[in-house]
Amino acid sequence: MKHKLFVAASLFFGMSLAAQNADEQFIRKIADEVLINSQAYDNLRTLTKTIGARLAGSPQMYKAEDWGYRLLEKSGSDKVLKQRVMVPHWVRGGKDEATAILIGNKKKALQVIALGNSIGTGSKLLTAPVVLINNFDELEEKKDQLRGKIVFYNYQFNSRFIRTFEAYGDAAKYRSQGPSRAAKYGAIGVVVRSMSHSVDNVPHTGGTRYDSMYAKIPAVAVGLRDADWLAAELEKKAPVKISMKTNGHFLPDAEGNNIIGELKGTEFPDQYITIGGHLDSWDNCEGAHDDGAGITQTIEVLRTLKALGYQPRHTIRFVLFANEENGVRGGDKYAELAKARNEKHILAIESDAGGFTPRAFSINSNDAVFEKVKSWLPLIGPYGCNELVRGGGGTDIAPLKEQLGTPLCGFLPDSQRYFDIHHASTDTFESVNKRELELGAVNMAALVYLVDKYGL
Amino acid sequence: MKHKLFVAASLFFGMSLAAQNADEQFIRKIADEVLINSQAYDNLRTLTKTIGARLAGSPQMYKAEDWGYRLLEKSGSDKVLKQRVMVPHWVRGGKDEATAILIGNKKKALQVIALGNSIGTGSKLLTAPVVLINNFDELEEKKDQLRGKIVFYNYQFNSRFIRTFEAYGDAAKYRSQGPSRAAKYGAIGVVVRSMSHSVDNVPHTGGTRYDSMYAKIPAVAVGLRDADWLAAELEKKAPVKISMKTNGHFLPDAEGNNIIGELKGTEFPDQYITIGGHLDSWDNCEGAHDDGAGITQTIEVLRTLKALGYQPRHTIRFVLFANEENGVRGGDKYAELAKARNEKHILAIESDAGGFTPRAFSINSNDAVFEKVKSWLPLIGPYGCNELVRGGGGTDIAPLKEQLGTPLCGFLPDSQRYFDIHHASTDTFESVNKRELELGAVNMAALVYLVDKYGL
Repeated sequence: MKHKLFVAASLFFGMSLAAQNADEQFIRKIADEVLINSQAYDNLRTLTKTIGARLAGSPQMYKAEDWGYRLLEKSGSDKVLKQRVMVPHWVRGGKDEATAILIGNKKKALQVIALGNSIGTGSKLLTAPVVLINNFDELEEKKDQLRGKIVFYNYQFNSRFIRTFEAYGDAAKYRSQGPSRAAKYGAIGVVVRSMSHSVDNVPHTGGTRYDSMYAKIPAVAVGLRDADWLAAELEKKAPVKISMKTNGHFLPDAEGNNIIGELKGTEFPDQYITIGGHLDSWDNCEGAHDDGAGITQTIEVLRTLKALGYQPRHTIRFVLFANEENGVRGGDKYAELAKARNEKHILAIESDAGGFTPRAFSINSNDAVFEKVKSWLPLIGPYGCNELVRGGGGTDIAPLKEQLGTPLCGFLPDSQRYFDIHHASTDTFESVNKRELELGAVNMAALVYLVDKYGL
Repeated sequence: MKHKLFVAASLFFGMSLAAQNADEQFIRKIADEVLINSQAYDNLRTLTKTIGARLAGSPQMYKAEDWGYRLLEKSGSDKVLKQRVMVPHWVRGGKDEATAILIGNKKKALQVIALGNSIGTGSKLLTAPVVLINNFDELEEKKDQLRGKIVFYNYQFNSRFIRTFEAYGDAAKYRSQGPSRAAKYGAIGVVVRSMSHSVDNVPHTGGTRYDSMYAKIPAVAVGLRDADWLAAELEKKAPVKISMKTNGHFLPDAEGNNIIGELKGTEFPDQYITIGGHLDSWDNCEGAHDDGAGITQTIEVLRTLKALGYQPRHTIRFVLFANEENGVRGGDKYAELAKARNEKHILAIESDAGGFTPRAFSINSNDAVFEKVKSWLPLIGPYGCNELVRGGGGTDIAPLKEQLGTPLCGFLPDSQRYFDIHHASTDTFESVNKRELELGAVNMAALVYLVDKYGL
């Protein structure tokens, strides 16, 4: 059946059997090169263990930029570019974040972490009674009870979704919009259930966005076991107060850079294929899956194509984007410059969904591009990505679509484990599997090769 | 495209659109029941943490049988059966296994573990010069140099295979046949490179099979980093001796049991669908993936079908097989009794490839059965298994095919992480992801439902 599909697709798109055979062989060479000689895992170890957390504006951001620049040079770029971009510089402001629960005279410490971009409580504790809010509908129902209170959003990460990014899409608004929507009704602080279905109690950060119409109030995420406990106490109508202390604040914008390796096209040097991930991570973790994986896979694709002596027809850009986590300034700058230079971009691919075993690509394009990429699945599928779905490509490349109409492609590894560790201290090097990381690079390289060879 | 395939398949097999719709809805119910109410993960915790390692004949084997019996009752079996079977009773014989390397006057301890079923060195150390053997061809070339020596098989687990079970199939003969093939030429001991591509140094055991033509000699597996180190020393022509001590021996066969839950068929009570895994594990690990996952998924399928009030047309047997690891006596007994009773078995399904994210089923059957199962992929694929391949079903159900010609089906989760932990102390509860385990049960339950509804 696989073979039949293959023949059908090839007849449709006019690939000869000889061409298919050559493609099969070249992709097998890509896989061998990666699975035998890959440097992705060792590079990831350096990025996560030597440099570590690297939020925009932090000293580690600069170290990561230098590391990426040198590695793109060493991995065979014809040239390496820097695109300067001003990035936000939020700092957690100390490790003494704390939230304590008071029930009568009893006191219990909760495992919390301040939300990214959130404001601190100042030097003193913020203490207030807590209101349990299970969803935004309930917020509206209880809007008259929120003044002077701390809102606890206990919205459940919905385990019924098979693709866990859908559960995240469903829940993340409580983190991004929750604080301002509570402040609108006079709340003075927010505790939000972590966007996760993990079995542990580790809290997950992530960016919040204050609506300038309302007061900025402190906000923390709480671990899942503590969230369950707190909800149970509140459902018992226990009189619960929370005391919280956070220290977050913004410093002046900092000067960051997109770091870009380039392989010059032999036939269409002015037509670009972009492949990338983001170099920054949240400050509370090693950012191994998010997005050290995407960064090291991107560099591995470059290393592999060079190691095989591949000379691309189009110019391929290997982009380590600045500042995805709390600003997307890197992605915006990349698209802005591409537009200003009137560049033609035929496809942009991002890996920012973890370093897990490959399963699919998502495509945001017209039908013709979708069907053409789909016709290549019989070639790529044996290495993991045997499915093509419609969907966004990635946060960093989205501005290319907005600015230039570029088709986007997202690399989609298996999503079951991702939200166990996303934006949490558990996103460590040890949570990445060497072969899974490498197979991601194989699938990405295969797609880049086919796009470059056949166009879109 | 998915929808088109779906319609095409349904027309071919005569399923009405209404039937497809009902099937989609029922499988969605299965998924909801498992993802919201699953007990598989908690059951796995009990099996691995409370009972632990459970090799055939061990006290833990009996505890696991009792646990399984009670759980099959509690999960809704119409009745629970025991099939008595005599099982081999190999014991490691002490935790003081050791292998030291001597180079000149230097001494280094290697991380080793005796192979299952292997003979011990007796109370004294076995010390001899070492010969590096990279493969069986080299063994034949060097056959005159092996008398009185210890053979070190350093055959590499081939990372070029995308499906890692192929690498295992390629390498495992050095563990199963290596000792006797070395003994044939007078070797007195064997050290074998672990069948793994893990990044750690943990040794992996597994069964060896002595050929009764030759002397039984002690044999250990060595961790990968130590294997690399040892090979490098030997390639430098360093004069290397190994001293090893192991204590393995067989006790008299023990009385074990297959533990079987049954749901009686309403229309065809004398036609059976078997689903199962194996209850035993190697003695050096919790056996969480191998095969606690298969056991708890099998029981979860039962619990789920009962929770949904499903009344099967055929009799479904949920089988916890005894003694897969070093004897397959449980699987043999099950097929022997089925044959003696002239039972009709329409399909046997096994989960014994780990508790990782679902990807495929393998089928060992004629073309008609294969194509019929394939026609159901559009219904099951959204939950993970979107591929059907030809291949064996599982060690425990293989005798059913041999004895009765029963079509076999193997549940194939993603294989990239499996040989990191297979037969090693790292096969722990913590290495299993809750959702991945549960999704396996969803896919297995969906297949059981479709086989029961439509037959094969």
